[in-house]
Amino acid sequence: MRETAQSVVALGGGHGLAATLTALRRLHDDLTIDQLTAVVTVADNGGSSGRLRGEFGVLPPGDLRMALAALCGDDEWGQTWADVVQHRFAGDGEMRGHVVGNLLIVSLWELMGDHVRGLDLVGRLLGAHGRVLPMATTPMDITARVRGLRADDHAAVDVVRGQVEVATTPGTIESVALEPHDPEACPEAVDAIRTADWVVLGPGSWFTSVIPHLMVPGLRRALTESEGRLVVVLNLEAQTGETSGYGPQDHLAALFEHAPDLPVHTVLADRACVAAEVDELEKVVTERGARLVVEDLAVSGEPRHDPDLLAAAFVRIVDEGR
Amino acid sequence: MRETAQSVVALGGGHGLAATLTALRRLHDDLTIDQLTAVVTVADNGGSSGRLRGEFGVLPPGDLRMALAALCGDDEWGQTWADVVQHRFAGDGEMRGHVVGNLLIVSLWELMGDHVRGLDLVGRLLGAHGRVLPMATTPMDITARVRGLRADDHAAVDVVRGQVEVATTPGTIESVALEPHDPEACPEAVDAIRTADWVVLGPGSWFTSVIPHLMVPGLRRALTESEGRLVVVLNLEAQTGETSGYGPQDHLAALFEHAPDLPVHTVLADRACVAAEVDELEKVVTERGARLVVEDLAVSGEPRHDPDLLAAAFVRIVDEGR
Repeated sequence: MRETAQSVVALGGGHGLAATLTALRRLHDDLTIDQLTAVVTVADNGGSSGRLRGEFGVLPPGDLRMALAALCGDDEWGQTWADVVQHRFAGDGEMRGHVVGNLLIVSLWELMGDHVRGLDLVGRLLGAHGRVLPMATTPMDITARVRGLRADDHAAVDVVRGQVEVATTPGTIESVALEPHDPEACPEAVDAIRTADWVVLGPGSWFTSVIPHLMVPGLRRALTESEGRLVVVLNLEAQTGETSGYGPQDHLAALFEHAPDLPVHTVLADRACVAAEVDELEKVVTERGARLVVEDLAVSGEPRHDPDLLAAAFVRIVDEGR
Repeated sequence: MRETAQSVVALGGGHGLAATLTALRRLHDDLTIDQLTAVVTVADNGGSSGRLRGEFGVLPPGDLRMALAALCGDDEWGQTWADVVQHRFAGDGEMRGHVVGNLLIVSLWELMGDHVRGLDLVGRLLGAHGRVLPMATTPMDITARVRGLRADDHAAVDVVRGQVEVATTPGTIESVALEPHDPEACPEAVDAIRTADWVVLGPGSWFTSVIPHLMVPGLRRALTESEGRLVVVLNLEAQTGETSGYGPQDHLAALFEHAPDLPVHTVLADRACVAAEVDELEKVVTERGARLVVEDLAVSGEPRHDPDLLAAAFVRIVDEGR
């Protein structure tokens, strides 16, 4: 147990954020972390989330649900409820593809008329080891300027709209933006970032789960002004579609192009992933006034982060950074 | 607080069972009752339950969900979750009419492959003050022999199939049966009845929520052989459709026609409802070896049971019956 407990905010969405939260939740249980908050993208337009967003005009619940499931305890109760909220109906009827936790969250929103109160209640119900907040209180869409979509004009740039469409574009993303372009940040998320000791950004779908946080004016201002130290966790590999062909430096470059003023404290990367270019990467990171931490982070033989290895890396970063 | 706490099983379905359970749950909180079990009809084929039963081949969850909601505490937590599990989606999309608690229960059944374990887990999640069990472990249908459906032959008897169809038939129900006719009773429900101090049957839709329990061979045997004292709670009024024109004695007669060997300890009736025929009713009840208890039970000016009045009546019955 550390002398001083820390407050930590993790920003992202999808499976990447879930890996970070699983790691941080275990540190929360160890009392290394005393306050843990997830701030989650709300631009999804696909699957069960997209259907519910379309039907009820609410925030897409899927990434919020996944974050809540990641914050469920490792005991039988926690794992049972994590499985339940993540359960996706199969079969071939009208419920096919819907996820139970999404429906539970949407029903609380309908009953309470308040996104944050509804999520807090689901968190209490599940015994979640931390708080889950949306990055903004209104649903939004991601748009991307994409090059290479036209067979007859490789230099032409088209605008692609929608999280699913951007994530799976066969073209090359030049930049992303939000629609509306200046959504109001969730006030509780802004407060959490401003008072955090540490903020973790990534891993995750870079253009559709990570960078969108930087495009919400209130969140970006909070990230820039917070005294909390920002840790950027790089992805283990490029994602087919949105980051095809991207290496570690390309990920960092995309981040800084979208938020040139972002103060980064630490960049955390997987040893095997950056082996070929660790010196160049270190140079880029140091030039930004940040430090590069390289650790083994992947589940053996798989392109996903191991929560225990990630937790161990966070402990070292926090110990060295205090 | 009573010297000896009692174990009580309530059989029924729908709003009638919910009223009984709300009353008994308050006595459970007072420690007048130490074990409270609801045994619930599973023959519904309409609404959200009917859709889920059709889509997934599971028990219809609606009456089970309503019983769980009635067992939620009166505190803010209990009432919030009761509201959530009872929340019915509106709008005009694919979720319209579905109830969140039904989806939660079905997802647990899908995950665990066990109706009772799934219901127990939902009960723990909600902090339910008692246990909810299905009367049988396979879905079933109610059929009714109905007279008066043919304009050209008023004496003809037709078979009507389905809970919704029976409950709303414009004809006169002669008898009901189950399909399959001998469903296997839920073993935990049989055990609860066999070891109960008291068993409460009704109020509720007489032919579709109350009498079906008597048509499950294992439940009926348990009711007949149990040393628990059976309290039959009469309805406040006839229901348009299945019991149009039925008075208190007609309700009792229907019950005894379906289960001539049913040992009844007490018949509980509302004062205003039986005022016109209390002497005749008392005669019928006494002839069965039972006693008639008449109390004010209705919410003022409404045809539904007041849980507090019902609870007070149960306390008097238990006090006098021990």
